[in-house]
Amino acid sequence: MADRIYSSYPPLLTPEQQEYLVQTVKNWAIEHALTVRPSAAVVPTELNPNHVLATNAPVTLFPSPFPKHCFEQARSLQQVYNELYAAIASDEQWLENILQELIEVDDFLANLWKIHLSVKEEGYVQALSLGMFRSDYMLHTPKDIQPSLKQVEFNTISSSFGGLAVKVSELHTHLATYPSVKRPLAYPPHPLFANTAHGDSMSPSITSIGHPPLNDAVVTLAASLAAAHEAYGPSKSGPQLPTCVIFLVQDDERNVFDQYALSSELHNRHQIPSFRLPTSKILALTSIPSKDTNPARPLIYTPPSSPSTQYEVTVVYFRALYAPTEYNTPTSWAGRHHLERSAAIKCPSILLHLSGSKKIQQVLTALPPDTDHLKGFLPRHPEATLNNLRTTFAPQYSLSSPDSHVEPEGLRLALSPETASNHVLKPQREGGGNNIYRDKIPTYLQSIPKSQWKQYILMELIHPPAAAKNTVLRSDGQVVSGNVISELGIFGACLWRNKSGSKTPEILHNSEGGYLLRTKGKDSDEGGVAAGFSSLDSLILYEEA
Amino acid sequence: MADRIYSSYPPLLTPEQQEYLVQTVKNWAIEHALTVRPSAAVVPTELNPNHVLATNAPVTLFPSPFPKHCFEQARSLQQVYNELYAAIASDEQWLENILQELIEVDDFLANLWKIHLSVKEEGYVQALSLGMFRSDYMLHTPKDIQPSLKQVEFNTISSSFGGLAVKVSELHTHLATYPSVKRPLAYPPHPLFANTAHGDSMSPSITSIGHPPLNDAVVTLAASLAAAHEAYGPSKSGPQLPTCVIFLVQDDERNVFDQYALSSELHNRHQIPSFRLPTSKILALTSIPSKDTNPARPLIYTPPSSPSTQYEVTVVYFRALYAPTEYNTPTSWAGRHHLERSAAIKCPSILLHLSGSKKIQQVLTALPPDTDHLKGFLPRHPEATLNNLRTTFAPQYSLSSPDSHVEPEGLRLALSPETASNHVLKPQREGGGNNIYRDKIPTYLQSIPKSQWKQYILMELIHPPAAAKNTVLRSDGQVVSGNVISELGIFGACLWRNKSGSKTPEILHNSEGGYLLRTKGKDSDEGGVAAGFSSLDSLILYEEA
Repeated sequence: MADRIYSSYPPLLTPEQQEYLVQTVKNWAIEHALTVRPSAAVVPTELNPNHVLATNAPVTLFPSPFPKHCFEQARSLQQVYNELYAAIASDEQWLENILQELIEVDDFLANLWKIHLSVKEEGYVQALSLGMFRSDYMLHTPKDIQPSLKQVEFNTISSSFGGLAVKVSELHTHLATYPSVKRPLAYPPHPLFANTAHGDSMSPSITSIGHPPLNDAVVTLAASLAAAHEAYGPSKSGPQLPTCVIFLVQDDERNVFDQYALSSELHNRHQIPSFRLPTSKILALTSIPSKDTNPARPLIYTPPSSPSTQYEVTVVYFRALYAPTEYNTPTSWAGRHHLERSAAIKCPSILLHLSGSKKIQQVLTALPPDTDHLKGFLPRHPEATLNNLRTTFAPQYSLSSPDSHVEPEGLRLALSPETASNHVLKPQREGGGNNIYRDKIPTYLQSIPKSQWKQYILMELIHPPAAAKNTVLRSDGQVVSGNVISELGIFGACLWRNKSGSKTPEILHNSEGGYLLRTKGKDSDEGGVAAGFSSLDSLILYEEA
Repeated sequence: MADRIYSSYPPLLTPEQQEYLVQTVKNWAIEHALTVRPSAAVVPTELNPNHVLATNAPVTLFPSPFPKHCFEQARSLQQVYNELYAAIASDEQWLENILQELIEVDDFLANLWKIHLSVKEEGYVQALSLGMFRSDYMLHTPKDIQPSLKQVEFNTISSSFGGLAVKVSELHTHLATYPSVKRPLAYPPHPLFANTAHGDSMSPSITSIGHPPLNDAVVTLAASLAAAHEAYGPSKSGPQLPTCVIFLVQDDERNVFDQYALSSELHNRHQIPSFRLPTSKILALTSIPSKDTNPARPLIYTPPSSPSTQYEVTVVYFRALYAPTEYNTPTSWAGRHHLERSAAIKCPSILLHLSGSKKIQQVLTALPPDTDHLKGFLPRHPEATLNNLRTTFAPQYSLSSPDSHVEPEGLRLALSPETASNHVLKPQREGGGNNIYRDKIPTYLQSIPKSQWKQYILMELIHPPAAAKNTVLRSDGQVVSGNVISELGIFGACLWRNKSGSKTPEILHNSEGGYLLRTKGKDSDEGGVAAGFSSLDSLILYEEA
């Protein structure tokens, strides 16, 4: 059924229509800061020595069709997912059991774990944790079956693009409704827009409101930072200091305007100041008083532009230090350790960061009666809710087995070219870029030492709508059309308190709100908007009666 | 007295402070679309083939000090000025008398006048006119005398930078108040900011609110477009068409985001659609039905992206065709004529465009008892108001005289090197860039035919605060500090109806609101923000007790 919708979308454009649409998008993007700093591929560094130039973020010219019931399911599950990951991050023993075999072979995970152990030994001074999450899904549309959602990843650190995603929804809404809903200039008539008389509709059984749903990602995410800031309470310094939130950012970040959307909202709506701290400056610009001076370990931030003014940091919001490649200076790990042991609320803590490992996602898919992790972490939720959550799991497999005499199911599927052709091999680590697809899996596994196999999980491929097409305006201004694959992200946030001796987090704030659609060309198996391979998109929801 | 203020401003910055301030301004500018498209000097065209890049508009890092009473005087006079120019544009005979000698020698003015005569002969079909004005002033601060305002120019066409000026005021307010008024991170303590304890103030007799005043230029200007759109009334076409406003723009405009601020406000607050029409497309995309079909001459706009949809244009807002250099294609003049004869309300009409000639400004300065033009145009205003207006006139002189046997006063002043040194020679035409300053005046006049002298007016130089300094972030990211000269622009708008047989316009809408400060390096005698020589600025008002 879905094919009928995707194969006739988006509407064709005459050259004049495309010129108007592209020109409108280019200018709208700059007017509304739907922007990134250009990469060196777009503007050579020597021509942009002062880093003043900006360009549009890569965006689709049209919102992508998406079944309304799937979008609503994803939204309805977000707060359950938030609670699930709060519970996982609160269960150190469970995490250790799962991650142990990886820690042995993966320096990155091992170093993170080491920091946790070190701070644990010294004693954590902050019982509150904040998670700002994005649960990513693809639409699974095998032949003749109703589309369903399959989770690709649950992001527990640096969940990005909330700021720009809101603007893309606004852009597509503008294009679909300007100057009026019935007569948008930018989009030719199409049944999924509201600019077609009812009789022209592709089918009376398909309905759409004609533009993307409201996207409140920025409001939701900033409110969670504000909730954490409030929950931190008064300054722990003596004398008391003014308080602030820190956005921990990469030194050479290009996606800054996505982040500014949150810090501006935090200030404009909540009157909470925030400062950007590049990872290279953690140790230079923040300090923690010695135990004798102040055992509460407040994190003190000294703005370089105003060294006589000190702030106490309530929340450190990580938009950096999520990937192994970022720990590339002698002080990177020391900086992470420094922040972890402070009294600032971390978004995320080390344990929450680790909870986002793909290994965890794979382990959760184990179905009862074998194991019932979900029931363990979410004891108060009815079985129907847990089953609803389980429908979003794509089959995933470990390549190792607790019993070394039994060949794991995952390994069997991965090594046979025939079964591998319906799978993707994913490394445990954050950052993407290293997935191995289909028939390349057996060869790849044979090419690496067997001892490394357990660093991967095998996931059944999701089959998104084969006929989906869109047109993209890239950051260099090139316009590219073709078949596409989209990934839906739902934003959510959770603030909780861990009580000593209890694995059950006390949830203080649990919210869902806002979405991201990332759309990439189909010939590319791997993507990331910042890398320029994929584009920001929004949704046009449809219902089939 | 003013010297004491200007010589200690702006506060000095450490390298760390300047780095933070510049970085903040760079990012704030992109986040809030305080932007322009870069010139070819900033980014070579071949590296920006798709025209997607943007950069910050050139801005000062600090708002410039300005005496509060001068700012308030300029605001209080704006509606009087609006009415004055409405009255001038409504008095064809007076305009013709004044401009006659210029029309004889200046092709540009002659062609404009020819269009007026042609449309007059055919019969004007639109009695309404809209003026969106900017009255430009400099601060005159000769030694030991209280600062006063002197008008530089009254703009009756394409009065630009209202959109960006609002953002500069917001930027400087942000810098002076973030994260708090008492502790702004971007600005070091200074008595003109609110971040200094009362005791540190440079003098208890000088007060300031510490940040720029609210700037409502966009609200004011868009409201005047909306008032004209409403006053146009229902479509004059049969059958009736949807109506729209046209922004007439230059084909290669770089200052697009200034214009988008107005069109977005027009749509968001007033629900009025507007479209951008490049001057090269006037004749291709608009049409006027023949006399037999529809004698009301509605201006019909056909969007190139949607040729089956037609709009009737209520208002043509000129952001182009103000300078002779723009009439550079075979159809430029035909396009202007086409718009003038249509039923659309012109902002401005040909007569209002001509009313902005510097010659008119010079003639108005003639003082009673010789002539009292002001009294003639503003009969309902008390003498005190007219005298207040007159205080803003800088002495100006014609270089010709009605009586050819008498050497005009202006010529005497211009040809003597001694007196010329306190004057500037200005051409009548719009566009700037050709002013001749001080001791260059006598030589220049001797180098051109005497018959051309009447194309110039001589104006006494205004003496702005000599000690004024500021620092500028240019569009290419370079930071430049030095002595500066600032020009204050006050925005206003006026909608009126001309009744046949009467020279007195019926004023329907008369508003004042918003300001622009343009600041340029002192070594440059001529400027224009778009040309990169001068920067957008805002005000920090001070009072001396």
